[in-house]
Amino acid sequence: MRVDGREKLQLRPIHIETDYLKHPEGSVLITVGDTKVICTASIEDRVPPFMRGSGKGWITAEYSMLPRATEQRNIRESSKGKVSGRTMEIQRLIGRALRAVVNLESIGERTIWIDCDVIQADGGTRTASITGAFIAMTQAFSKLYENKTIKTFPITDYLAATSVGIIKDHGAVLDLNYSEDSQALVDMNVVMTGAGNFVELQGTGEEATFSPNELQQLIETATHGLREIFSIQQKALGPIANHITLTCEE
Amino acid sequence: MRVDGREKLQLRPIHIETDYLKHPEGSVLITVGDTKVICTASIEDRVPPFMRGSGKGWITAEYSMLPRATEQRNIRESSKGKVSGRTMEIQRLIGRALRAVVNLESIGERTIWIDCDVIQADGGTRTASITGAFIAMTQAFSKLYENKTIKTFPITDYLAATSVGIIKDHGAVLDLNYSEDSQALVDMNVVMTGAGNFVELQGTGEEATFSPNELQQLIETATHGLREIFSIQQKALGPIANHITLTCEE
Amino acid sequence: MRVDGREKLQLRPIHIETDYLKHPEGSVLITVGDTKVICTASIEDRVPPFMRGSGKGWITAEYSMLPRATEQRNIRESSKGKVSGRTMEIQRLIGRALRAVVNLESIGERTIWIDCDVIQADGGTRTASITGAFIAMTQAFSKLYENKTIKTFPITDYLAATSVGIIKDHGAVLDLNYSEDSQALVDMNVVMTGAGNFVELQGTGEEATFSPNELQQLIETATHGLREIFSIQQKALGPIANHITLTCEE
Amino acid sequence: MRVDGREKLQLRPIHIETDYLKHPEGSVLITVGDTKVICTASIEDRVPPFMRGSGKGWITAEYSMLPRATEQRNIRESSKGKVSGRTMEIQRLIGRALRAVVNLESIGERTIWIDCDVIQADGGTRTASITGAFIAMTQAFSKLYENKTIKTFPITDYLAATSVGIIKDHGAVLDLNYSEDSQALVDMNVVMTGAGNFVELQGTGEEATFSPNELQQLIETATHGLREIFSIQQKALGPIANHITLTCEE
Amino acid sequence: MRVDGREKLQLRPIHIETDYLKHPEGSVLITVGDTKVICTASIEDRVPPFMRGSGKGWITAEYSMLPRATEQRNIRESSKGKVSGRTMEIQRLIGRALRAVVNLESIGERTIWIDCDVIQADGGTRTASITGAFIAMTQAFSKLYENKTIKTFPITDYLAATSVGIIKDHGAVLDLNYSEDSQALVDMNVVMTGAGNFVELQGTGEEATFSPNELQQLIETATHGLREIFSIQQKALGPIANHITLTCEE
Amino acid sequence: MRVDGREKLQLRPIHIETDYLKHPEGSVLITVGDTKVICTASIEDRVPPFMRGSGKGWITAEYSMLPRATEQRNIRESSKGKVSGRTMEIQRLIGRALRAVVNLESIGERTIWIDCDVIQADGGTRTASITGAFIAMTQAFSKLYENKTIKTFPITDYLAATSVGIIKDHGAVLDLNYSEDSQALVDMNVVMTGAGNFVELQGTGEEATFSPNELQQLIETATHGLREIFSIQQKALGPIANHITLTCEE
Repeated sequence: MRVDGREKLQLRPIHIETDYLKHPEGSVLITVGDTKVICTASIEDRVPPFMRGSGKGWITAEYSMLPRATEQRNIRESSKGKVSGRTMEIQRLIGRALRAVVNLESIGERTIWIDCDVIQADGGTRTASITGAFIAMTQAFSKLYENKTIKTFPITDYLAATSVGIIKDHGAVLDLNYSEDSQALVDMNVVMTGAGNFVELQGTGEEATFSPNELQQLIETATHGLREIFSIQQKALGPIANHITLTCEE
Repeated sequence: MRVDGREKLQLRPIHIETDYLKHPEGSVLITVGDTKVICTASIEDRVPPFMRGSGKGWITAEYSMLPRATEQRNIRESSKGKVSGRTMEIQRLIGRALRAVVNLESIGERTIWIDCDVIQADGGTRTASITGAFIAMTQAFSKLYENKTIKTFPITDYLAATSVGIIKDHGAVLDLNYSEDSQALVDMNVVMTGAGNFVELQGTGEEATFSPNELQQLIETATHGLREIFSIQQKALGPIANHITLTCEE
Repeated sequence: MRVDGREKLQLRPIHIETDYLKHPEGSVLITVGDTKVICTASIEDRVPPFMRGSGKGWITAEYSMLPRATEQRNIRESSKGKVSGRTMEIQRLIGRALRAVVNLESIGERTIWIDCDVIQADGGTRTASITGAFIAMTQAFSKLYENKTIKTFPITDYLAATSVGIIKDHGAVLDLNYSEDSQALVDMNVVMTGAGNFVELQGTGEEATFSPNELQQLIETATHGLREIFSIQQKALGPIANHITLTCEE
Repeated sequence: MRVDGREKLQLRPIHIETDYLKHPEGSVLITVGDTKVICTASIEDRVPPFMRGSGKGWITAEYSMLPRATEQRNIRESSKGKVSGRTMEIQRLIGRALRAVVNLESIGERTIWIDCDVIQADGGTRTASITGAFIAMTQAFSKLYENKTIKTFPITDYLAATSVGIIKDHGAVLDLNYSEDSQALVDMNVVMTGAGNFVELQGTGEEATFSPNELQQLIETATHGLREIFSIQQKALGPIANHITLTCEE
Repeated sequence: MRVDGREKLQLRPIHIETDYLKHPEGSVLITVGDTKVICTASIEDRVPPFMRGSGKGWITAEYSMLPRATEQRNIRESSKGKVSGRTMEIQRLIGRALRAVVNLESIGERTIWIDCDVIQADGGTRTASITGAFIAMTQAFSKLYENKTIKTFPITDYLAATSVGIIKDHGAVLDLNYSEDSQALVDMNVVMTGAGNFVELQGTGEEATFSPNELQQLIETATHGLREIFSIQQKALGPIANHITLTCEE
Repeated sequence: MRVDGREKLQLRPIHIETDYLKHPEGSVLITVGDTKVICTASIEDRVPPFMRGSGKGWITAEYSMLPRATEQRNIRESSKGKVSGRTMEIQRLIGRALRAVVNLESIGERTIWIDCDVIQADGGTRTASITGAFIAMTQAFSKLYENKTIKTFPITDYLAATSVGIIKDHGAVLDLNYSEDSQALVDMNVVMTGAGNFVELQGTGEEATFSPNELQQLIETATHGLREIFSIQQKALGPIANHITLTCEE
């Protein structure tokens, strides 16, 4: 049994509260165990300079933690005057992942700003951000689609992420919490589509390595968990889920 | 009748959810109408260099808004690489206000970090931050006091803040929402103690001025609202409120 | 008697040297006791982006201290690479205050840059800056008005500022020098128009509070001092003062 | 046939010039096709604050490109005043990868600074950096080991990296050049040890996804190429290679 | 005749007002034609880290211009968040020049901070800064010497600077004002000691070159002017000048 | 005999490898003793804002050192987030020097970016940069000239730089290496044209001074060395040298 009593293939409880905030076009509060992230999607009617005139849209993400999301208070990146390498890595990952399931042509020259703000952290903040941001983004696109600003629903498939890892005496386990993450020998984040294809796979040995065989187990563990998460996402979306279903069937 | 149907002397609904987060020593989610702020208090066992050896503690505050707390998305200050003048002004105000009701000697050489993160903004974010931060700070001190780390309860009185303003055709009104704030001729923030004394008074004519007579009305309006807020704070504190009552009676 | 021998209601000697520098459209060296500030007004023939097309002008202020304006040398903000919270608060105050007595429509799409550089500091640098900047700005507008670049003289009233405070054993006193300021229990900056209306009122208890009654005394003390300052400003302006008189009479 | 005439499983020519610079403890110029990187290893006799007293060493990496390493000149990060997200991601990857094959205890409280400066870029700069930095680091450790500053040779295995990708009409190919990289559907960087275990696996769909089956092919392709690179590394090391062989046999 | 009516070898009027400010250990307002610079010297009782334990002192300089010292308003370097290359070049020059006439051993582990703040600019601000800073520094050392904090007067000779240049139709001229400077073909700054030796010589062709013969003329012109400036400095110093005379005679 | 066995008037071995990199319009690796600098010239088809519409081109230079170009590793300026005063001084010098031998009208509204990246440092990096950058720039212009983008060859003369200095017991010596430079009493950089005119002359006493007589010797020493360097440059240019010869003869 794991440190919080879970089985190796068991996710922490996931809850997605939609329409969490008043102003953004899409917003959720996603809870994965004790990890809580506010994900919002904002629509801007123009694209960054390098894309102007392309007729295509863009999706960009920012990620941040409240100073006291963690056990020890962190100094704000605004006070330090610069964004850390870790933050940049995460926000690049989130943006890249979401772009993989969006038809950028069909959204026109618009930018979707994704903001993932972690208000409480207990491991898996980047994967929770991707899973939650997908819902916020879908809501924002639904508004554009329902008021006929865009003609085709631009999302081509579900998208979610989870972490897996190898822990001493346990082997491959699903959805690491902070305590597990800090002692994992290998840590892997998997971003997958509803159809079961990979969007991003980042496996890292923490002063350790992993064999091809262990890689196989990690991937199977992640795939198992992600199937469950897709079903939670579908429920959270409610009727909007139909837009995605229709797109996938085409 | 005001834009949201309130009377001139009527506050928006205020709700204070205590113990909102897992990690901080004190934390609340304060809701004032559509304004929502997460306030946390973190205890650090040392003071900034300029106070070392003084035997006294320090209270410092940081304030921030999520990018999409507002109608239009704001660029993160961490992305801009610097903190705006407005943010600095607000965090200096919050820290100064809280220090006015704390006996810094009795907390020893500790720093209390107050973080006020606005997750949804509809006017009055700085006054809501002060009102909420007071609760978070009181909770944090209670923990120190109850586990006997400090001997005297360091809070000397209640502290809350509200805004008042002069609006065309309405005169002095209490607790401005964003829409009222943007068209106010005069805007005043009042920070007051439970005993009815001023800690901070900041009145500003927005390309307008105000007479001594109008000043008098603004102050009476604020005082009226603050009395009500003190009572909401007392309820939110629950049994901890007794520590303050005892201190005040001494 | 106060530390420098003044009465409670007595200002320090104020001297305003006009046309102090060769290049700016308006410039003064204002001396208030040992506090010396160079205030200049520069005219730029365009406004910031957020005001373009509005037909209105803008007034913005910057404030700085020479490193050795003070008893201890301060590190330059350019060396630190960022402007402190205190500086930002002051320059926002100066700009806001000046805008309150200027008809921004009548100056057209121009920006007035106010620079207040403290070359010697002994308390009251922000209030001296406002009092001096008003003169520099008035001179700059006179040039525009006299060469008929603008048709209406844009200043609607006099503007000056002073500080008042509550000092142990003295109560409310006028125009605090540095030594008084550092031990004041309450410190208040008052910005007022010639007509006796408030533009800005910022009262702060320094780890102390003040009662409604004390507020009243502070305001009366400030009003007394400001009347005297308006008369000093009028003399400093010389014939240009007539433009303001005419505007006020309208 | 690929754009430069290679087979799918064919590496570009790799050349490693050792002892390239005079000052560093280890330095190479690694050439992979038209990609050229100067990799140096510098030894500092202390560790960062968070590791002091641990008795362990640390390895940290920095990565940069000369402005004209690329087809279009890039603005220097020193001129921009900040390091890009891409740069941070790469230098974190290099450091993490190298640490996986070093016994940090046996180097004592020392920091190894790895600098990878790309002087000419044609794709695969991060993987060439890892492959070259491993040699520079090994040289630096050899000096410590040969002059008996450290008792155990700290490197536990070979380490190298390469990229693989899926290209339209070609499927999985080895060691992408810049032209291939810009049109790849999937791009994967693989860092592996001499024993054939993974240290890092980063696969990314570029507005595309990849199936479990394709993942399998990519991994086989990378493994094929890495075996060849280990042999090139061994030759470049010359007699120093024996230290690693001995360590591995233990 | 030159643009302002001077002869080729004629300096602009120079005036040095000593004890200009209240707080610094040494301070002057130096006026050279329309160029006005406030120079202060501040004593700090420690040296920068790289000199600790050396038993020697250090002299460092900072240079800045008020935004409206010039015809067009300049953006403050504190607002831009960085110091320009020109400013850095000038402050390095001032510090280096002053150190050349100070016996750093005899001042002990102290730092002398020189601040040169240009309040009005009309060419030659860096040379006026050096000439004025020498006086401010000498005053500061006199205080240390007279109160017996230091035993030997540390200044070994006079130090002053001027500019010379080659102007079309005039050839080599002394002490260029801004208008001359902007059209000079060659511009040279000369820093010299009272004994007639060079401390610094910086000659620059502005999209032009100068022959060995012209170099000779420029040097003679500068030497002529500097002799006159030494005599102005001596008068400005008053009785303190004796300390230098005594030192030089030794 | 000098520390490395050279005569007083003897240069270190100089080698210039042309077409060193693939992408830039001009690029060299210049070696002066143990000092090695990669100099590139990049052509951009526009000029900075302050020159737009002038019909003239611009030349700007950047200079940097690899962290381990030196005996001790230096922190990257990109990591520090700012460029040092020394770096700025050098890059301003390089740009100014090169502009002196280029007819900016004949290159049209183009910017030539010069990048000098020191990969190994042993004194004289700034002068080696100028000498090498002249070759890289000439190559870049030749391409423009040969493909008839520009009609007149824009280089008006050769340009090279060297350092001279006064060393205890040796007097004036040519081309100082790092060890000599650190103990030189006087250090002078001389930038000269093929015709023997000065472009830049920067002599500095390092806590020392130099007499007019010593200045004379330094200049003669530098002139001697520069004649030799011009001949090395001519050989390195090969047939391109003819363009310069023709220009000079006109």
